[in-house]
Amino acid sequence: MSDDLDLLDAYWRAANYLSVGQIYLLDNPLLREPLRAEHVKPRLLGHWGTTPGLNLLYAHLNRAIRMRDLNALFVTGPGHGGPGLVANAYLEGTYSEIYSSVTDDVDGMRALFRQFSFPGGIPSHVAPETPGSIHEGGELGYALLHAYGAVFDHPDLLALCVVGDGEAETGPLAASWHSNKWLDPRRDGVVLPVLHLNGYKIANPTVLARIPTDELAALMRGYGFAPRFVGGDEPRAVHAELASTLDEVLDEIAAIKADPPAGRPAWPMIVLRTPKGWTGPKEVDGRQVEGTFRAHQVPLANTRTDAGHRAKLEEWMRGYRPEELFDDAGGLVPELRALAPEGARRMSANPHTNGGLVLRDLAMPDFRGHAVTVDRPGVESSAATTVLGGFLRDVMARNTDRFRLFGPDEVASNRLQAVFDVTDRAWNAEVVEGDEHLAPGGRVMEVLSEHLCQGWLEGYLLTGRHGLFTSYEAFIHIVDSMLNQHAKWLKTTRSIPWRAPIASLNYLLSSHVWRQDHNGFSHQDPGFLDHVINKKAEVTRVYLPPDTNTLLSTMDHCLRSRHYVNVVVAGKQPQLTYLTMDEAIAHCTRGLGIWDWASSPSDDVAGEPDVVLACCGDVPTLETLAAAKLLREHCPDLAVRVINVVDLMRLQPRTEHPHGLSDKEFDALFTVDKPIVFAFHGYPWLIHRLTYARRGHGNLHVRGYKEEGTTTTPFDMVMLNDLDRFHLVMDVIDRVPSLGSRAASLRQRMADARLAARRYTREHGEDDPAIANWTWQ
Amino acid sequence: MSDDLDLLDAYWRAANYLSVGQIYLLDNPLLREPLRAEHVKPRLLGHWGTTPGLNLLYAHLNRAIRMRDLNALFVTGPGHGGPGLVANAYLEGTYSEIYSSVTDDVDGMRALFRQFSFPGGIPSHVAPETPGSIHEGGELGYALLHAYGAVFDHPDLLALCVVGDGEAETGPLAASWHSNKWLDPRRDGVVLPVLHLNGYKIANPTVLARIPTDELAALMRGYGFAPRFVGGDEPRAVHAELASTLDEVLDEIAAIKADPPAGRPAWPMIVLRTPKGWTGPKEVDGRQVEGTFRAHQVPLANTRTDAGHRAKLEEWMRGYRPEELFDDAGGLVPELRALAPEGARRMSANPHTNGGLVLRDLAMPDFRGHAVTVDRPGVESSAATTVLGGFLRDVMARNTDRFRLFGPDEVASNRLQAVFDVTDRAWNAEVVEGDEHLAPGGRVMEVLSEHLCQGWLEGYLLTGRHGLFTSYEAFIHIVDSMLNQHAKWLKTTRSIPWRAPIASLNYLLSSHVWRQDHNGFSHQDPGFLDHVINKKAEVTRVYLPPDTNTLLSTMDHCLRSRHYVNVVVAGKQPQLTYLTMDEAIAHCTRGLGIWDWASSPSDDVAGEPDVVLACCGDVPTLETLAAAKLLREHCPDLAVRVINVVDLMRLQPRTEHPHGLSDKEFDALFTVDKPIVFAFHGYPWLIHRLTYARRGHGNLHVRGYKEEGTTTTPFDMVMLNDLDRFHLVMDVIDRVPSLGSRAASLRQRMADARLAARRYTREHGEDDPAIANWTWQ
Repeated sequence: MSDDLDLLDAYWRAANYLSVGQIYLLDNPLLREPLRAEHVKPRLLGHWGTTPGLNLLYAHLNRAIRMRDLNALFVTGPGHGGPGLVANAYLEGTYSEIYSSVTDDVDGMRALFRQFSFPGGIPSHVAPETPGSIHEGGELGYALLHAYGAVFDHPDLLALCVVGDGEAETGPLAASWHSNKWLDPRRDGVVLPVLHLNGYKIANPTVLARIPTDELAALMRGYGFAPRFVGGDEPRAVHAELASTLDEVLDEIAAIKADPPAGRPAWPMIVLRTPKGWTGPKEVDGRQVEGTFRAHQVPLANTRTDAGHRAKLEEWMRGYRPEELFDDAGGLVPELRALAPEGARRMSANPHTNGGLVLRDLAMPDFRGHAVTVDRPGVESSAATTVLGGFLRDVMARNTDRFRLFGPDEVASNRLQAVFDVTDRAWNAEVVEGDEHLAPGGRVMEVLSEHLCQGWLEGYLLTGRHGLFTSYEAFIHIVDSMLNQHAKWLKTTRSIPWRAPIASLNYLLSSHVWRQDHNGFSHQDPGFLDHVINKKAEVTRVYLPPDTNTLLSTMDHCLRSRHYVNVVVAGKQPQLTYLTMDEAIAHCTRGLGIWDWASSPSDDVAGEPDVVLACCGDVPTLETLAAAKLLREHCPDLAVRVINVVDLMRLQPRTEHPHGLSDKEFDALFTVDKPIVFAFHGYPWLIHRLTYARRGHGNLHVRGYKEEGTTTTPFDMVMLNDLDRFHLVMDVIDRVPSLGSRAASLRQRMADARLAARRYTREHGEDDPAIANWTWQ
Repeated sequence: MSDDLDLLDAYWRAANYLSVGQIYLLDNPLLREPLRAEHVKPRLLGHWGTTPGLNLLYAHLNRAIRMRDLNALFVTGPGHGGPGLVANAYLEGTYSEIYSSVTDDVDGMRALFRQFSFPGGIPSHVAPETPGSIHEGGELGYALLHAYGAVFDHPDLLALCVVGDGEAETGPLAASWHSNKWLDPRRDGVVLPVLHLNGYKIANPTVLARIPTDELAALMRGYGFAPRFVGGDEPRAVHAELASTLDEVLDEIAAIKADPPAGRPAWPMIVLRTPKGWTGPKEVDGRQVEGTFRAHQVPLANTRTDAGHRAKLEEWMRGYRPEELFDDAGGLVPELRALAPEGARRMSANPHTNGGLVLRDLAMPDFRGHAVTVDRPGVESSAATTVLGGFLRDVMARNTDRFRLFGPDEVASNRLQAVFDVTDRAWNAEVVEGDEHLAPGGRVMEVLSEHLCQGWLEGYLLTGRHGLFTSYEAFIHIVDSMLNQHAKWLKTTRSIPWRAPIASLNYLLSSHVWRQDHNGFSHQDPGFLDHVINKKAEVTRVYLPPDTNTLLSTMDHCLRSRHYVNVVVAGKQPQLTYLTMDEAIAHCTRGLGIWDWASSPSDDVAGEPDVVLACCGDVPTLETLAAAKLLREHCPDLAVRVINVVDLMRLQPRTEHPHGLSDKEFDALFTVDKPIVFAFHGYPWLIHRLTYARRGHGNLHVRGYKEEGTTTTPFDMVMLNDLDRFHLVMDVIDRVPSLGSRAASLRQRMADARLAARRYTREHGEDDPAIANWTWQ
């Protein structure tokens, strides 16, 4: 082994030493005295198994960064190898720069060790607290997606992405190798995947470690990569092989970047096979540990109470020869210090890993320019997402380096096709005659995988860019768990001062529950709203604009915002328009409000109504207005207040959500003693959950989706769920005693109207035009 | 082409004809008069593009079934090709047997056409209503998983699984090719995957259709298959090639089954490349349709209003030569009728596709035999899941052909390792020295993919077997959307009389939110309960047994149940036991109840309490009991009622859920006017959502998980979320005015105790033993 690699080995030993120290030690960090029980943590919480492999790759990539002045970041698929990434950030000096109490000396090392996985300290994973991380890896499957998201539109960036062989069994990871079909070698950076076969998960071997090498090579070639295999359990040999392989693949990458081939290049990737828990205890209590699943967490479990275990720990740590690695003060010796890259070239300090630092505002076109004319409310029609498409086209045209649109093959289906006036779909696979809008440099990311869309977008946002994800409402549940993890990242980073805010994660759910005419029950589910609202209130926002201009205003707001999860629900079908642009802006700014033109009497908004009709969502708004009209016709003396809600979070108490109305405001709008019939887009109990603490809650009656539906007409769908105009009127009748003797006959009329509507639909296969073409006129 | 294949082609044409007829026609089903506008449906809702390929495969598999007497089923990945599967069930006679109004004649054909995607009719997808289906395909990604689940433990069954090239882009599908590593050729049946490359999704080409053939072949070999390629756009040639290929691969499969090789065989699979919308209109309005994404739904959109479109439809349908296919009465001509298999060999009538028909009860061991002794409540400890493991071992031992355990590498981690006394992990990949409990015939299915676990289990249940899925609570959100789809299937099939009930989908969530000591925030989320409860009440059940004996009783109940989704949450750490087995059974049968031994005064359960302490979940129960003890010590005259809830659904009104308590029962337990401090395992608002309509709701104060947590000690976790015993006492103090002057000093004591506990933890890295080792003693 060359001197060069001898030093590299020493650096690796230092990282391993610091990793073990974090897992085990409270004190005596440099083992300058014999290890005693009280030096050891009482609870040992961490993961050793994957860590030496991560440290190995990190050290070798450092070497390449120095040699080639690479702009690189490290995506740690096995995020529970947290001690390794923390160790490396400490060795590079970044850790002490950011966390000034963790100094570059014995005291600092003690603090470094103590804080790890310790109450009041840092998490055991590659958490947001870890410098250089855009990826926690707590939930597995998204490492490659985050890496690709990071390098899109960052042509000079290299993401080394370690894929654990456990993670490689997950669905999202298995699909995400294909990301190379969306990468443009000219415009984008490069992902170098390293599939790390250490062979074991928690208690089992891994699949990819237990198939023949030629099958694994075929799999990687089938994914479009040119695989290289490196492996062994003798450090010197592995160092030499890994260094030369890295040199080779980085040369190859440089050649591709310098002169991209026509078509998709076969990007290199590396399969690294090293033992799990490498350099750790070979055996414990007579059972093999190194190279088995038993090395996954803490190889020596009883180091506090069992002197034998403790002796083994001491032997293990001393095996790294700390006295050669750290000077008297406890700092890294200069010749090793020289191995780390400098400044922003350090992977732990690469500004792309703190996306808010490199985030530039979107150049926003004026959404008002896309307003539709609304002469009278509820009379004209417009397809909200078609108009939004024009706005998004202008956003894309003005931000060709920092904004992308993501969707599972639904951009055109969701009527956003205007964006193709200025860009294409990203596509670096074969193109044939007749293909439309496919190009390597396209900025619309379409793939039939919500996981891929979400993962790419997360990586793109986390490294300082902007985006929008459009999807079916029902199937966005596919990424429930990914949303969870991203929302946790946003929540945690709000209290990490050195993490700058990033752009919001924006969803447009357009093929929504009420209009699955083609698809029926399997495509119906509005529960993503419930899911999102469970996340920390400071992070989540939910908007249901009822028409075109409110959608434009809402989307403009969302695209400008920072560090939120914004969910916007808006149908893609032509529908009535209600508000002029000025009115829409005012309404969206308030988040909800009385629609006096729809209320009766419409000239007295301050008066006390007999009943409140509230609505949230485009379809419920239509039905509510139709109900209000029916009430106006049939009960002209009934005072009906119509409230439309755009910003769902306004319903929560102010103590629960920053957007929440004060109780005074809420009571003034909804009254404290009048019946409220609330027509909601989603599950009705969501409204109860948001409002249960309000004074008027006992008077609240909510209609929404109750899991009834099939392939049928739009009006049949609302009838199946009792959300239709006639049923809303019946709900009012049942709750307003003052209707007196008129109640029974009106109720019967409404029931008859429902029956007639159903009969018409069953007979004609479409809705009665009098219902389908209803306007406020 | 041989006569044989000429006939097969005619059968295919018949299926295609019936498919197009379903999408388009209201009347004139056999085109015995010229097609007029009123014969056409006013709304055209269906998917043509994938249908001819499905029909082709179905017809060819029918040929093979007849020739080889195969026991086969057809898993339709592209489930929106619904008209094709309905057409085939009709051609086979199954449809008319089940739906007697859809007769085998002109009138029946008219009814068949009319009902499709029509109000009051049938859904457009391969829905539960479709005979022969175990897979709707509404949400894509799970076809192969369902197919593998179906053949596990069905050694004679062949599942032909069509994987659409759109679906193939999803994560779950991309990972599920590896299912062959869990298949035992001796014990299990066979899946024959057909990757159908018709090249397009809704608006885009597909990835696998646009990579070189050698890459695709490598990918399939990498997945462990031996791929065959068939393709073309000339029917005669494709028939010949597909028939011979199918013969070849079925010979190969038969050879493997007859004499399984040592190790994992390279199972055959077929790549079929045919045009999207094959045999449909080549061009419409000057744009190519057949062979492009424009064939995805309805190639001719305006057949009712546009005479040109209508003429084209008529030409298209007549091109199938219906007069050759159907006799005067409208029935299939005898020589084609003879091509369908008979009886249960028809794929539309295979009893495995109606799993309840073949379902056999589990042979249940007596769970009482596993009871732990509880001499005094709240004093002894037991690890609930360890004991459960013994019970599950006995279940597995007695049901070696019909029960499997599924989990993402967590069976041992969740302490269920006793099952390995009687079985192994299924594993048909390489085995090396030192491996534990891996064997091709193992009945524990472990893979690091919740998607694979869930999909396999669904397929296993849908074909008449039993199972249990154990997982991390947080990461079970990964399958939120799959759960949705399965719950929809259960809901829909409840009202399909010919569908027999299947075994319940059982979850054990054991590594739960409160004990992520190793992992911290990224592994915390109790929201799956919220998600499940959104599904139809008749389908979902949620249980939170507080200790070992209640867990045993609960699990016994779940494993015996039918057609539910049962979610059981129970921690894997040692914890206090409270109830003897008899008490546990009684408590679980009631679903909730007063714990009089923990209440004070404990001899007067009928008396009116001053405050109710309610709890649900193991950790909240512990904290609640500790709080009750503190109150007993500090406020001996305070009447405290302790209620434990096992069956969460008991809290809902009876009108909302069949398990719901009547208002009278609820009021008697929880009072209508006394403060209720409720300690809950999950998000607190879930309790509010369940109880908002109860009289005493205004007095309810809920503590639960509020998204606070990190890597820390168990007691620090509950403190971070204000669920700890001290905080619960403070909550009582704040709500019971009768405490008078004692309130302030007791409150201060509790606050001090919290501070002291936190200080201890921060200093020692573990919880104060006085807290950690607390008992009711």
